[in-house]
Amino acid sequence: MLQTKPLVHCITNYVTVNDCANVLLACGASPVMADDEREVEDIVSISNALYINIGTLNARTVNAMLRAGKKANALNIPVILDPVGAGASRLRTEAALQLLENIRFDIIKGNISEIKNIAGSANATKGVDASDEDKASPKNAALLAKELALKTKSVILISGPLDIISDGEKTLSIANGHEYMGRVCGSGCMLGALCAAFRAEFPSLDAAVCATAAFGVAGERAFKNQGLMSYRNNLIDAVGFLTPETVQREKKIETLTV
Amino acid sequence: MLQTKPLVHCITNYVTVNDCANVLLACGASPVMADDEREVEDIVSISNALYINIGTLNARTVNAMLRAGKKANALNIPVILDPVGAGASRLRTEAALQLLENIRFDIIKGNISEIKNIAGSANATKGVDASDEDKASPKNAALLAKELALKTKSVILISGPLDIISDGEKTLSIANGHEYMGRVCGSGCMLGALCAAFRAEFPSLDAAVCATAAFGVAGERAFKNQGLMSYRNNLIDAVGFLTPETVQREKKIETLTV
Amino acid sequence: MLQTKPLVHCITNYVTVNDCANVLLACGASPVMADDEREVEDIVSISNALYINIGTLNARTVNAMLRAGKKANALNIPVILDPVGAGASRLRTEAALQLLENIRFDIIKGNISEIKNIAGSANATKGVDASDEDKASPKNAALLAKELALKTKSVILISGPLDIISDGEKTLSIANGHEYMGRVCGSGCMLGALCAAFRAEFPSLDAAVCATAAFGVAGERAFKNQGLMSYRNNLIDAVGFLTPETVQREKKIETLTV
Repeated sequence: MLQTKPLVHCITNYVTVNDCANVLLACGASPVMADDEREVEDIVSISNALYINIGTLNARTVNAMLRAGKKANALNIPVILDPVGAGASRLRTEAALQLLENIRFDIIKGNISEIKNIAGSANATKGVDASDEDKASPKNAALLAKELALKTKSVILISGPLDIISDGEKTLSIANGHEYMGRVCGSGCMLGALCAAFRAEFPSLDAAVCATAAFGVAGERAFKNQGLMSYRNNLIDAVGFLTPETVQREKKIETLTV
Repeated sequence: MLQTKPLVHCITNYVTVNDCANVLLACGASPVMADDEREVEDIVSISNALYINIGTLNARTVNAMLRAGKKANALNIPVILDPVGAGASRLRTEAALQLLENIRFDIIKGNISEIKNIAGSANATKGVDASDEDKASPKNAALLAKELALKTKSVILISGPLDIISDGEKTLSIANGHEYMGRVCGSGCMLGALCAAFRAEFPSLDAAVCATAAFGVAGERAFKNQGLMSYRNNLIDAVGFLTPETVQREKKIETLTV
Repeated sequence: MLQTKPLVHCITNYVTVNDCANVLLACGASPVMADDEREVEDIVSISNALYINIGTLNARTVNAMLRAGKKANALNIPVILDPVGAGASRLRTEAALQLLENIRFDIIKGNISEIKNIAGSANATKGVDASDEDKASPKNAALLAKELALKTKSVILISGPLDIISDGEKTLSIANGHEYMGRVCGSGCMLGALCAAFRAEFPSLDAAVCATAAFGVAGERAFKNQGLMSYRNNLIDAVGFLTPETVQREKKIETLTV
């Protein structure tokens, strides 16, 4: 999909890091993982985007995230935040807020529970999945995305069966994807990594929309009634097989009035 | 297989963590990985079971295991121990013993070398696999399991070609499984994670027996003379395709007189 | 491929660690991952080879690498270095040099950018891939390999479309492999791990040559026009299906005059 082989620096969790690396390669980007605070400034300086994901965070890696993000801001390198599990523990909530206070993010991507938490409008998250009560109406999600976008000056991407994206002025929904994406480990992280890769070539709103539509189309095309691991592998394969024409033809994007 | 989508908190090694996450999803559970000591109490408090696996342990994560385990005990949340490589280094042996002294475990799962080591009846382990001399008679394994179960008040699961499970009163063997399970990375860890998931819905002995029989049946059904990685993927797929009826029909469980 | 089931101690990055474990199993070796400095001396002492890979290094793991490497040297256990990303950050470059000063390596394996960096003849690396300008002529690579081999007394393996191997006296090229190997995450790390496994059974030059030829043949046989993840899985499967006869028949090795 991408044309310039952007280098994407990822500071991400050790659960899905291999999936993130492979999906970045599949979309035409090049991944580099580095989380020691003594090297993240060097690494981000040669990168085209920075992806910060707080799953399995610890004191050491949070410091690395802060240093990498500040350096990226100073160099005008785009930064994407994936606040995995914000709300599930005080540490994650506080880390997400600390990152938001110190770093300007181009795109913030999370499920509805995580985004509510960052917006200060939720109490608790069940693990790293969206809670059932949060999976409410697209209208509420759209309003939340718009308001948080205005407040943070970031593009907000709320992932879910219907993805909602807003830059504060324009709000859209994307209806692509497959139910199995929520049932395999790593699809959320892979979407975040793809947002970073696309952001290296597109403005923030376009990047979030393109990455989400492309990943959703890949998720639809990957499904063959197979088991979970086979689906996960096919999903990454399918990203590699995408063409801009396929995504253009199969995307289901609507502009919302919020 | 599972009905209540239990949240399983895993503090586990970075080698097979992705397999553990996907096999938990495949069996109907929901995984959450968190190993910073400042958040493990929060995370375990919203979880339905805790899985502690000491592969690739370090000083930081051992502290997290201790805090998570104590909190789980205080809240009556079940805890499962997988003492990977106990006996291969003094650090692992001592960490396993420290965990046993401070935490009450519902199930302890290991290969014969690891369980012997925990029971104080072995000297050295070859890496993380059972040594050949330890792969001795099922009778000895059954006796070891029974005695350690009585001593620790935990259900003991000795995994191997013939799995042995004992709660001190009842001792069983399970003959399901496939030789390839021992040849791919992660099958032991996946079984430990499944024990935690099943423990969220069943008493300890039933949970260990059901998880082991189910995983063994999946291992048999997954085999199609394929390569190792394909087998690993099919194994996790197969867990997702299991029904209680299939396991009931294909399980090979025997009660042993010890 | 291997006959003695050598135990290979890996201190490696968390991105591709699972691939390394499975490819080691596929070739007939047994992997053990351990990176806490309090246990690496114990673990390496029972191992047949040590594989050190500096991807996602940090202060804690660099210390573990140093202790493990020194202990391996003292016990005459072979040590393989994979200086992933040397040149991409000062930390990685310095860590690689610190390891080289303190440990005698049997084989050093890297792409042309990494090896140039170690040899002190390069400035910057683009992430963890070889930069385009470095992908120059095989002649220059052969000269570099020979000179660095003489200087370090290690076998130097420069991986690329054409792999170059030298022990300072003899220099060879291996033309096996498939373009897809460079497009999936982990193929470089897997080759490094295989070098360690083969080194447990063969002298350094033979080990590097056999591992590289075998992995290249597997990479050719794995290709079926599939997606990236399917290719990665098939690559590891293919290593498991190799026989010495297949590699003997399909290897493309040439001796170079340098």
